[in-house]
Parts: sequence; structure tokens; C-alpha cells
Amino acid sequence: MTLNKIYLDNLIKTALLEDINYCDVTTDYLIPEEQNGHARFVAKADGIVCGTEAAVRVFTLLDDTVTFTILKKDGEPVQKGDVILTLAGRTRALLKGERTALNLIQHMSGIATASNRYVRIVEGTNASIADTRKTLPGMRPLQKYAVMCGGAKNHRYNLSDAAMLKDNHIDAAGGITAAITSLRQKLGHMTKIEVETRNLDELREALSAGADIIMLDNMSPALMKEAVAVTGGRAVLEASGGITDETLRAVAESGVDIISVGALTHSVKAFDISMYISD
Amino acid sequence: MTLNKIYLDNLIKTALLEDINYCDVTTDYLIPEEQNGHARFVAKADGIVCGTEAAVRVFTLLDDTVTFTILKKDGEPVQKGDVILTLAGRTRALLKGERTALNLIQHMSGIATASNRYVRIVEGTNASIADTRKTLPGMRPLQKYAVMCGGAKNHRYNLSDAAMLKDNHIDAAGGITAAITSLRQKLGHMTKIEVETRNLDELREALSAGADIIMLDNMSPALMKEAVAVTGGRAVLEASGGITDETLRAVAESGVDIISVGALTHSVKAFDISMYISD
Amino acid sequence: MTLNKIYLDNLIKTALLEDINYCDVTTDYLIPEEQNGHARFVAKADGIVCGTEAAVRVFTLLDDTVTFTILKKDGEPVQKGDVILTLAGRTRALLKGERTALNLIQHMSGIATASNRYVRIVEGTNASIADTRKTLPGMRPLQKYAVMCGGAKNHRYNLSDAAMLKDNHIDAAGGITAAITSLRQKLGHMTKIEVETRNLDELREALSAGADIIMLDNMSPALMKEAVAVTGGRAVLEASGGITDETLRAVAESGVDIISVGALTHSVKAFDISMYISD
Amino acid sequence: MTLNKIYLDNLIKTALLEDINYCDVTTDYLIPEEQNGHARFVAKADGIVCGTEAAVRVFTLLDDTVTFTILKKDGEPVQKGDVILTLAGRTRALLKGERTALNLIQHMSGIATASNRYVRIVEGTNASIADTRKTLPGMRPLQKYAVMCGGAKNHRYNLSDAAMLKDNHIDAAGGITAAITSLRQKLGHMTKIEVETRNLDELREALSAGADIIMLDNMSPALMKEAVAVTGGRAVLEASGGITDETLRAVAESGVDIISVGALTHSVKAFDISMYISD
Amino acid sequence: MTLNKIYLDNLIKTALLEDINYCDVTTDYLIPEEQNGHARFVAKADGIVCGTEAAVRVFTLLDDTVTFTILKKDGEPVQKGDVILTLAGRTRALLKGERTALNLIQHMSGIATASNRYVRIVEGTNASIADTRKTLPGMRPLQKYAVMCGGAKNHRYNLSDAAMLKDNHIDAAGGITAAITSLRQKLGHMTKIEVETRNLDELREALSAGADIIMLDNMSPALMKEAVAVTGGRAVLEASGGITDETLRAVAESGVDIISVGALTHSVKAFDISMYISD
Amino acid sequence: MTLNKIYLDNLIKTALLEDINYCDVTTDYLIPEEQNGHARFVAKADGIVCGTEAAVRVFTLLDDTVTFTILKKDGEPVQKGDVILTLAGRTRALLKGERTALNLIQHMSGIATASNRYVRIVEGTNASIADTRKTLPGMRPLQKYAVMCGGAKNHRYNLSDAAMLKDNHIDAAGGITAAITSLRQKLGHMTKIEVETRNLDELREALSAGADIIMLDNMSPALMKEAVAVTGGRAVLEASGGITDETLRAVAESGVDIISVGALTHSVKAFDISMYISD
Repeated sequence: MTLNKIYLDNLIKTALLEDINYCDVTTDYLIPEEQNGHARFVAKADGIVCGTEAAVRVFTLLDDTVTFTILKKDGEPVQKGDVILTLAGRTRALLKGERTALNLIQHMSGIATASNRYVRIVEGTNASIADTRKTLPGMRPLQKYAVMCGGAKNHRYNLSDAAMLKDNHIDAAGGITAAITSLRQKLGHMTKIEVETRNLDELREALSAGADIIMLDNMSPALMKEAVAVTGGRAVLEASGGITDETLRAVAESGVDIISVGALTHSVKAFDISMYISD
Repeated sequence: MTLNKIYLDNLIKTALLEDINYCDVTTDYLIPEEQNGHARFVAKADGIVCGTEAAVRVFTLLDDTVTFTILKKDGEPVQKGDVILTLAGRTRALLKGERTALNLIQHMSGIATASNRYVRIVEGTNASIADTRKTLPGMRPLQKYAVMCGGAKNHRYNLSDAAMLKDNHIDAAGGITAAITSLRQKLGHMTKIEVETRNLDELREALSAGADIIMLDNMSPALMKEAVAVTGGRAVLEASGGITDETLRAVAESGVDIISVGALTHSVKAFDISMYISD
Repeated sequence: MTLNKIYLDNLIKTALLEDINYCDVTTDYLIPEEQNGHARFVAKADGIVCGTEAAVRVFTLLDDTVTFTILKKDGEPVQKGDVILTLAGRTRALLKGERTALNLIQHMSGIATASNRYVRIVEGTNASIADTRKTLPGMRPLQKYAVMCGGAKNHRYNLSDAAMLKDNHIDAAGGITAAITSLRQKLGHMTKIEVETRNLDELREALSAGADIIMLDNMSPALMKEAVAVTGGRAVLEASGGITDETLRAVAESGVDIISVGALTHSVKAFDISMYISD
Repeated sequence: MTLNKIYLDNLIKTALLEDINYCDVTTDYLIPEEQNGHARFVAKADGIVCGTEAAVRVFTLLDDTVTFTILKKDGEPVQKGDVILTLAGRTRALLKGERTALNLIQHMSGIATASNRYVRIVEGTNASIADTRKTLPGMRPLQKYAVMCGGAKNHRYNLSDAAMLKDNHIDAAGGITAAITSLRQKLGHMTKIEVETRNLDELREALSAGADIIMLDNMSPALMKEAVAVTGGRAVLEASGGITDETLRAVAESGVDIISVGALTHSVKAFDISMYISD
Repeated sequence: MTLNKIYLDNLIKTALLEDINYCDVTTDYLIPEEQNGHARFVAKADGIVCGTEAAVRVFTLLDDTVTFTILKKDGEPVQKGDVILTLAGRTRALLKGERTALNLIQHMSGIATASNRYVRIVEGTNASIADTRKTLPGMRPLQKYAVMCGGAKNHRYNLSDAAMLKDNHIDAAGGITAAITSLRQKLGHMTKIEVETRNLDELREALSAGADIIMLDNMSPALMKEAVAVTGGRAVLEASGGITDETLRAVAESGVDIISVGALTHSVKAFDISMYISD
Repeated sequence: MTLNKIYLDNLIKTALLEDINYCDVTTDYLIPEEQNGHARFVAKADGIVCGTEAAVRVFTLLDDTVTFTILKKDGEPVQKGDVILTLAGRTRALLKGERTALNLIQHMSGIATASNRYVRIVEGTNASIADTRKTLPGMRPLQKYAVMCGGAKNHRYNLSDAAMLKDNHIDAAGGITAAITSLRQKLGHMTKIEVETRNLDELREALSAGADIIMLDNMSPALMKEAVAVTGGRAVLEASGGITDETLRAVAESGVDIISVGALTHSVKAFDISMYISD
């Protein structure tokens, strides 16, 4: 799995324009142009690494003579102290790219690590962990990629590629059945329809109307269990809302197929990685 | 304080292109074009709100007939249940902009709330809380603005507008004194020089050499106290590295001027805000 | 159904930068700045109109005092001579926007008209007409939207949002079953899997392996009929390749669900519309 | 003749962002990263090839280790079955770039082939075939380049680089003579003036006033012949409007200098080219 | 004459992003949001004003409630002390836009004033003053527009829209005649051909070969006079190279048609304009 | 010191899109694709060279097989006749890039040369020369870099990174002391405060209030001398306004620290450099 190179280059250029502006006054004035050095990225905690290609790309975009070795690929587990990647090249490029590269790899590894933690909590159950559209501007490709690297799955990408029926849509259409019927006539065969439900009656209507996915919105694990029984495999069931670390396992054991977690992307804790520069 | 409107519009457009792509299949097919509705943004926790203009701008960029009232301005405290802003206009626009607006205001309020929490912890001491360059691509203006709204302060913006001497710079220049001397000759009068130090000897050399700011890197509060005494007001002292919630107050009480906290922007927890749509 | 306004504005600005460059030497020198006029867009043939909002937006982006009335909405049938929309405002803006507006509405109406023609050919059968990824750079949102306005449906949008197994993928994975099994473990619940097949054996394997959609690649209508029988509703069947105006009805009558037509977007015939300016 | 590389790269990046978004779920999950393969582009019809550099650039932008050989250069005739270019490199890059490369080369070859067909119809007469501003947003450079590759010629590029007098301009200026006189005083020496005329009286006035080019708008071949006689070489004559395949030769034989054909760019039929991938 | 609004908006946004970055720390912290004020732009010298719409657009892009009155239009002469335009609106917007607006109007008025000075020097002769491609990145539309506002004329816009034969082209083609002949077969009817010549022999060859424009490169006024006689109106003659304020009139009196002056755009002296803000 | 490569590439691409548009009709039609040549950039005057990397980058962006040697680095003095850099590669690339490369290097060398001239005038005094925000849209990074290459210094980059108190700010805040006090509480430790003063009373208030920099606005050298005495080193003093070549030395000898000169960037005279192409 690799992140679209064109997107990644654009994003890195945006970051480098912000961070360097016209020059690096410290580095440009004090480090001789031809001085060379080495650098290594080291994990300061245990987790799943993500963003290695992004990190090295920062340096090669600044100076295409920088060379690198990636020792831990995106999606691999790392332990505190592991060397993730090494770099060699002009010290100026190493210093100028340091912050931008760390910002990227720490954010991506933070997402991958958190995603993986959730995945391991639900291990052995029927449930998969999925992300949401709760992402940051311009960062959705990168954030969704990091979720995958952590072993979790991607929900719909945007408002064009799947239908999600909320109260307002259902009311305007005159009910769940009317809404689904109307959409089926218009949507292409690649576009799935999901319906938000708050109780078993709505679930039953969504099932009859042929929803592909049914979201169980803020239901208790006990009620979800009933929902799984009522559904009997006729639709994918997604648990969403109010799920905490404490309740996650119980939710997963209810038999739902998908548990979507906004925090994977909206509340990212950076994964601690340091860059060490040497001669 | 207002965020640069040109920047903000560009960022919101980026987000809307990601999220809507060519259409919103659910909304465009089910909600009548002329249906109107109201919406309100409600705080689900206590904190500092930030991003209200960003949130309403999402809707007016989608449909310039949407009207709004901002009840809580950026930087104001809110309590769980407070209405932050209200909107009126076409239901289609309200539904299409919901996710993008929430993603922005939750991220920004998350930064402002965390910043403010740190500010309150150090209240009554000499210390200010400052951010770092640990931001996300394309998001630095927005993140630095949110830090200000939380009552904390901005560190240097980028590598052009201030000098920060690390080991590599000092080594290449032949020591702290040589490095500062060399930079002073070249830098303009608006550009400050900060030096990273790890012990009192380095601190003393930086003081003699006339550093504007001296970073006390990973020092204990006790050592910082000594550093404050040694410095005697001749430079601004910045504590950085390894500071936790538990140690923050002790660090602040050591007498340092600035405590910089990467987590303000690299590990943001979204502040919970809901949007409710009604007829 | 409305095309994402942010995307549309960007596209129109691209077109106006190309076409006007720094000025319109004829209009700027000869037409007095304050002269006003009227314009109407008139269909020169029978078809389905599309791009009316795009056309009027060209003029309001050039001069926000231009007013307009849209008489035929996107997706509506028009007959030769029908007035599609009218404009009033500064003659300079009308003249400067004419070519760009016509280029857009003629292209979009061309797609909608052709799509609708195909839709009508297969009317009464089980088959829907779908587009492909055979679009032009930067034009995919607009072209897919025009296909919808013509009554046809959208296939997958891009390589991220659905899986399509071709020979190379199947060979690398070790067969259809292995490929589908491998993908199912990794893909999210919103992502469908389609498999290209060239004979009934491949079809049977794809069915057993649980493909969501099965493409019947360059099969004869007779063979497609067999494929429909074999499938028995267990998957969506898509006919693709080598379908002409002459064979389309026969293909549709074979019982397939989807007929994808690259020509909808890769070989667009502009729909003839004229703009008349008067005082 | 080569298309501006900066423009071409931008356009291809736009297309790849649309088509790949964040990843290619099929290829990234099933094709091993280090698998290599070969590909060849083969003509499926007779025509003029165009877009070979664009096609190979798609792959080298995705992966700069892809190598290629162009066997048929832009503007060269190809016959059904001819290999146009070959590629070697990572299979992932070949698969990810396939659709984008084909979309470009088929569109450009479609324009070149159609342009060349018109050129051959008028062969032996005085007339040249020219394009118009009836192009698609962001595609004008590429489309005008393809017209040249087909042996036809480019009309003015945009509203800045030549003057074209229509009714509205002439009326506002107080007649053809007044309009041309006024423009001559203002325009630079590189800027030509063209006038639209509908009859011989207007033609005569345009000639006296010193128009560089005179458009004969929707005239019959017979009337054009008269116009050619009246003109006697004092201006370039351009036939435009209502010209079909059937009437084209007659129009050319009337003696006009230029026949402009909007369909070259507004109604492009993709030229059929296939890409075959092998080990 | 008006500069393309889409281009102008993009350029101003670029400038405002550079100058404001995320906020104006002085203004945002000290000026109350609702404070209103007035401003006026006043000429500090005599000249030709240009850039009034650009200047006011800076303010309306920052705050669309700012109102304005333009008292001196682009191209009009102003005298020291003349009020060029007035503004009313929020003081914050007036202060934030001041520098950007002045940078634009001073640069544009500088070009217009210098262009006009040259135009007046050659008044009464046959010669027109023209600009060159010696412009700054991203500024060509604006700079060429300002040249027109000063009463001078625009040379070719870029390398696509006219041919200019230099030594290297002529050598590669095998002489002036061969080069022109070859180009004529390929170029469209809107594209003029200019040839650089250094002596009368080259001039004569260019004339015979049918060049549209002939550049007299670094010739003395006396030699130019001969060239004019030799040419006898068969081509446009352009004087270029080594022309100074002192020699300009003599060059113009030689009878050449065009005198191109790189300094109009490559060595611009800002025209002094001040902005005064009051309550 | 090197200009941010990401910024530079973007700027050059902007220039090449403007100048080449879709092709170079002269070069593409007349110069054989495989013809190679050499070129050299030669100074036509004495000065400081700047923009060498920009110049060669123009050619390598057009054709990455072009090779080059930079003989005079940015910031080095050159004399009339000196070869600044040499190039070798395809003649087409050399011809297409010539104008863009010269436009950049002439502008940047013009700034560096003028900056250096001012620097030499004040040599031996306490004063440094500084630039201003009087730059052109999109050109600020490049212009500020060129100022540094000429030996002068950079003032604040934009409105975010330093505070500058003008009349309006002071009035709104209720005086200099109130304004500075208010700002100090809010601004970060990297942000300096400058105050504009017109007389010694204002200077004294600014000093008491703790301004970092005090601008002496349009004061005579004699008054500045008094200001220096009053200040006694307690703040940086900046002379600004109405300084001419004639008065510059006297101003510098008054003892001020900084003399800011808008003309460095707002009224640039291109430095004359020629490019010679040979086989």
C-alpha cells in the first residue's frame, strides 16, 4: 500500500513553504553548503510506524542527492529504540527538513498506532474498526492511509461515493423505505446506502427496504446484540457513537460488523519519534 | 484577532473539495432544493471555543444566502450545552457543510481549550505557555491562531523569522559564542537568536554571547531554578522537553519565562461540539 | 442534483484565465464600460440540457451585477428553438463570457443528451447505462454529473473507492478466488469488488468467491444471456466492451444489470446551443 | 513541436489526483511492490498519433524508474496494430497510470486524426484548416497542440492576442470602418484584426477599412467565390459556420484561405488505443 | 480597458497571503473590530495613474463591506496632491490592506507614467512605443496592462503567439529566407513573423522573404533611416537595443514604426502615492 | 544562503507558463530536437550577482539533461565582461528558457547591486541598510533574499511576525504607552515591537514604554542625532522616510542603527546581463 505520490509531494511542498519560507536563517548562515552528515529516526515508544516514505520524501524534495534506507516499513510494529530509517546527505537539507518530516511521521504513526490498538481490542470478534470523515483539511488521503496501515478499515471517503441517510434525509423523503427506494433508482451499482437507526423498529424498516449498511446510533451493547439477531446477516451493522475504550470490547462482542471511531483521525496523539543528526 | 480571510477561504475550499467531490448523493437526491432549515452548534463539554468564523464561512461559501449569528466568539469560554452559533438557510447547504464545519471548529476549539488549560495551570507564575512548529501541513496559521485564542502565545513562525541554535549549528560555527557573533553580523534587527542549552555552562556562554532567548533543554525544575538565578533577567528563558501535566506547575514556579508545549498542536483532542438541524 | 460549487468556480476560473488572459482587446476597446444588454441561450437541436448553472456562473464571476433566469434546468429535455436561459447586464461581461459559457454548456449538454439516448434505447429492460473512468483531466466531476443529468448512472469514481480485478491482479494473487479473498480481508465495508471475466468458468469462480459485480468482457449477447442464467441474481452483471449502437438493445435484453459506455465521456459531441446578445 | 512540459506535468498531476485519490486499492493490495512488467500501446485503428510524451510522462511521474521507447512520434500516421510506444518498470506504476495515459493519448490522437482528415479533404486547394476557441477548461494548450500535430493550424489563442469584430462591437463603434480605425490606434503591431461579415457589402467595407482577416459567416460556397474575387488577395478570408463533411471540399475550392472548424476540439472522438501489460 | 478580474483576484490573494500570513498582530490586537474609518490615496508626484481597481479590490477582498470611490481612472493623468480614490469601512481592513494596495498601484502607475513619458517624447513621429517580454514572474498581465494605460503598446505576449527569428533560428534553418518559408507553411494566419536584422543586407533578405516585422537590432539612427527607405512600407520596422532617453527622439525621427523598450517593465520606478487614514 | 527550492520552482513554473504557453513556435519549428549548444551569461556592468541558481533552474526544469557551471555565486561582485555561469544542452531548452532566466537574474542582481551600493555608502558608520514590505506580489521571498545577497538586512517579513505601531494604532489604544503595554501582554517572546515617532517627545514615551525599535519618521539628520543621544542605546533606532542618495551618509552618521529603504525592492533597476548561445 502506498500513498499517491502526487498528493504526497503537494502536501510536503505546502509544509516546506510554511516552515522554511524563504530561507533557514540559522542553517543557511552557519552550516557550510558542502558539509555532509547522517541522520536516523528512532522510535521513542512502542507502536506502528507510518509515514516513512513521507519522511524521506521531505529530504529528497529539498535536495535530491540525499540518500536513505527505510528499515521499518509503513504498518510494521516498532519498539522504543528501534531505528526506523536512516539518511545521508548535506547537513543543510537534514536540518531544514527535520521538523517537517517529524511532523508527518509522528502524526501518521500516531494514527496507525491508535488504529492498531483498537483493532487489537476487538481481535477475535466479528467486528472491524473503521474510520470516519472526521479528518483535517487537505489531510484526508494521508489520514485514511494511516488508518489502513494500522490495520483498521476505511469508511466512505466522501459525500459522493456512498449514501448515508440521516433524520433530515428520511423526513424529507417521507420515511426510510421511501428514501431508500428513491435513492436505489438513481444511484449507480457501486454506491452503497447506509441508514442511521436509533431503535429496532427503524432497523427493521431499513432491513426491509434493503439498506446495505445500517448504523446503530448510540445503542447499548445489549440492544446491539438484539439488532444483530434481528438482522440475521441481511445487512452490515455499524456501531457508532458514545463508544469508549471501556465499552469497545463489549460492543464488538455484540456481533456488529463495523465499529467506526472518529477519534482515529480527529484526536490524534503524535507518536514520539526523534531524529538524530551525526557527522 | 481574526484569522486571515484569504487563507481561511482557501483552506475551507480544500476541505469542501475533499468532502463533497462532485455532489452529495444523499442530500442532492433527497432534499428539495428550496427546503429551508435552521441549525445550531452546541458545546458538549466545557472549554474555550475557537473557529466560529471558520464554521460559518463553510456554509456561506457553499451558499451565500445562508445567514448566521455567532453567540460565542473565538476565545470565549463555553459550558456544556451552550449554543455557540446558529444558522438559517437552505437545508442542502446545512447538510453539505456540517462535517467540514464541525471538523474545523472541533479542532480549533480543541487547541484553544488545551492551551487554556495549560495557561491556567501556570497562572500566577512568571511563565507563559507557547506553541512550537509541531503543526500539520497547511494548518499552521489556523493552529497558531487557535493557540492565541486559548490565551497562550506563539513561538517563532518558521525558519526564516528567528534563529534557533542547535548542536549542529554550534558545532559547525565553532561554539556558542562564535555562532551568535556570526549571526548577529548577518541578521536583521527584527530577528531574535535563541540557543539550546543543556547545562549551566552552556547557559553562561549563551548569556555572555548575548543570546536573546535561551532554551533550557530537558532540565529538571531544580536546575531551571538555578538557571533563572544565573540569568538574572539578561535573557528570556524557555523551558522545553519532557514537561508533563504533573511537572508543569513546578517548571513554571522555577521562574522561567516561557514553557513551550508541542502537544498544543501535534496531539490535538477534538473539542466535542454537535450540530443540530431543525425545520 | 447540483455540481459542487467550489469545484465549478475553480474550473470556470481556469477557463477564463485561458480565454481572456489579461484583457479582451476587442471588447475592452470598443464596448463602453456602462453599456448594458441582454442575452439568451437557445437550443439548436433536441436533447437534454446540462450546465445551466455553469453557464450563468461564468458571467457572475466576471461581473456580479449580471442577472439571469434559468428556464430549463439541468436534466430537462429541450427542443430546437427553446430558450434555455436569459441574462441581463453589462455588455462587456456578456461578450467576454460567451465562449467560455458555451464551451461548458455545450459539452455538458452533449454528454447528457448522449447518455439519455442510450438510456432510452435500453428502456424497459433490466439494464442501466453507466459511465467509466474514461474522462478528461480536471473534468471528471463535471462529466460524471452530466451523465447523471442524462439519466444514466455513475460507475466507480476512482481507483480508491472500489476494486476492479483485471488479469494482472488475478495472476499476481494466484487466481480469482485468492484475489477476492485477499481483498475482502483488507477492504472496508463500503468498497465493492468487481471482477473482469471472459467466459463462464471465470464467471462461476467469481460468483463462488463472492464478487459484488462481475464484468462480462466482450461477450456476445447470447453468452451474456447464459451468464445471466448462471448468475441467478447472485451478483451484479456488467456488460462492457465492443458494444455499439446496433448491439446495445440486444445486450440490454440479455438481462445484464449494467452496460458501461466509455463513449459517454471520451467521445463527446457538443450539443449545439447559441447565445444571442441584444440591447 | 513539443507541448510545454510545465503545463503538461500540471495537467497530468490533476488527472492522477482525480483518478488515484489516495491509493489504488486493487493494485496496492494485490500486486507485489517489486514486481516488474512491460507494456505496449497499440493502435486499434488508422490515424495520426498524438500524446506519446504525455502518455509516458504519466508513468514517469508515478515512478521515475519506469523506462520507455516511443516508436511513433506525435504527428506520425499509425495503422491498426502498430505499436506506438513501449514501457518497462514496476507493474504497480503500469497499472495505476494506464487509464490516465490512455485518456490523454486517445483524446489527443482523436483530435490529430480528425484534424488530419479535414486537411486531406482540402488538399490541393488554397485553404488551410484552423481550430477555434471551442475548447475545454484547462485543455486549450493540449488541444491546440494536437490540432497542429494533425497538420491543421491554430487560430487566435485567446481574447487578448487578436481582435475579432462581431455585430456588437461594430454597432457600439458605429460601423466596421469606425471600429477598425479605433482599434488600429490602440492595438500593438503584433495584433491582427478580424471582422465577421455576412454579405459582400460588409466585406467591401472591411476591405477598405484594412481588416487583416475577414470572416465569411455562414455564406454559401458560391457567395464565398464572389467574396474571393472581390477581395483579390487584399485580406485573408476565413470561412466559418455551417460547414459539414459534405460541403467542406466545395468551400475549400471557393478560394478562401482558412476554414475554421469548431468540431476539431469541441466534439472529439477518442482514437482507439489499447495498452497491453505483460510480464 | 480592464484587467482580467480572475487574474487580478488571484494576484491580490497571493500578495495578501504573503503580507498578512495568519494575522496582523498590531491591528488585530489594538484596533476594535467595529471601528470605522476613511482613507484616501493621494498622488505625490505628476504622472499617469494605474491600478485603481487593483487597489480597491485589495480592501473589498479583505472585507466586502468596504466602499470606495475612484476619482481618477486608470490611464488618467494626475498631479501631485490629487486624490485618486477614497475608501470607507472598517479601520482594520484599511490598515491590513494598505501596504498591498500601495505596492500594486505604485508599481502599475510607475509603469504607466514611464510609458507615457516615452510616448510623449516620440509624439508627432511615426513611431509607437512597445513593451517586451522582460517582465516579472506572474506579473506579465498586470505589467502589459499598465503599459497600455500609459499609452504605449504591447508587443507579442509570449513564445506561442508570434514568431521571432534570432541568429540561432536562422542558422538552424539555413538562412532568413529558408526560415521564413518554413514557418509560413506551419503557422496559422494569426501568427506574425518578426526577424532580427543587424544590417541592410539582412533587412533586404527579410523583406524579400516576406517578414511581417523586421527588428533593427542596435542600429544607429542614421542606419535606421536608410532601413526605412529601403523598406518602403513593405514591413513594420522595430527599433530595439541600446536606445536611451537621449537617443529616443532621434530613433523615432528615423521613421521606424515601433520602438521597444525593455525598461518599461524590467526597471520600474514606483510612482509615489500615499494613503491617509482618518476617522 | 539559498532560496527555498520549493518556492523557487513554483515561481519559475509560473514564469514559464506565462512565457511559453503551449509551445515556442519559432524554436519548436526551426531548431532540430536533438541539436545541442552552449550558453554563457555575461555581466554587462559592475555589480553584485544574484539569481544564479534561479537562472540555471529555469533550464533544468525545462530539460533535466541541461548541465551547468556557476562561476560567480549569489552575492559575489562581478565586473563588466565576467562570465557568471555556463550551460550546455539542447538548443531548444536554451532558447526557451533564455528570457525567463534573464528576467530573474537581472531583477535579483539589480536588487543585490543597489543594496550593496547603499551598504557601501554607510560603511564605517553604525548603520545597517534594511529593506521594507514594499515588494511585488509573489516576489517577496526572492526580493528579500536578493537584499541579503547585496549585504543589506531584512526588516520584518509580514504583519504577523512583528508589531509596528502607527498613528492609528496608537490613537485607538490611547497612546504609545497604553499600546505597548497592551501588546506586550499578548505577544509572544519572539515578536518585537516597533513604534513610529515624529519627535523627541514621542521618542521618549516609546523608550519609557519599552519599545524594541523606534522609527524616526522623516526626521532631519540633526534631529536624529539628538534622538540617538536621548536613546542612549536603550532601543534600536530606525531612520525612515525621505532619505535620498545625497542625505544617506549624513543620516548614517547621525548614529541610527537601521536605515530602511523602500526603493531596494519597489524601484528595482534590472542589472544588465546577456546570454550568448553558441554551438
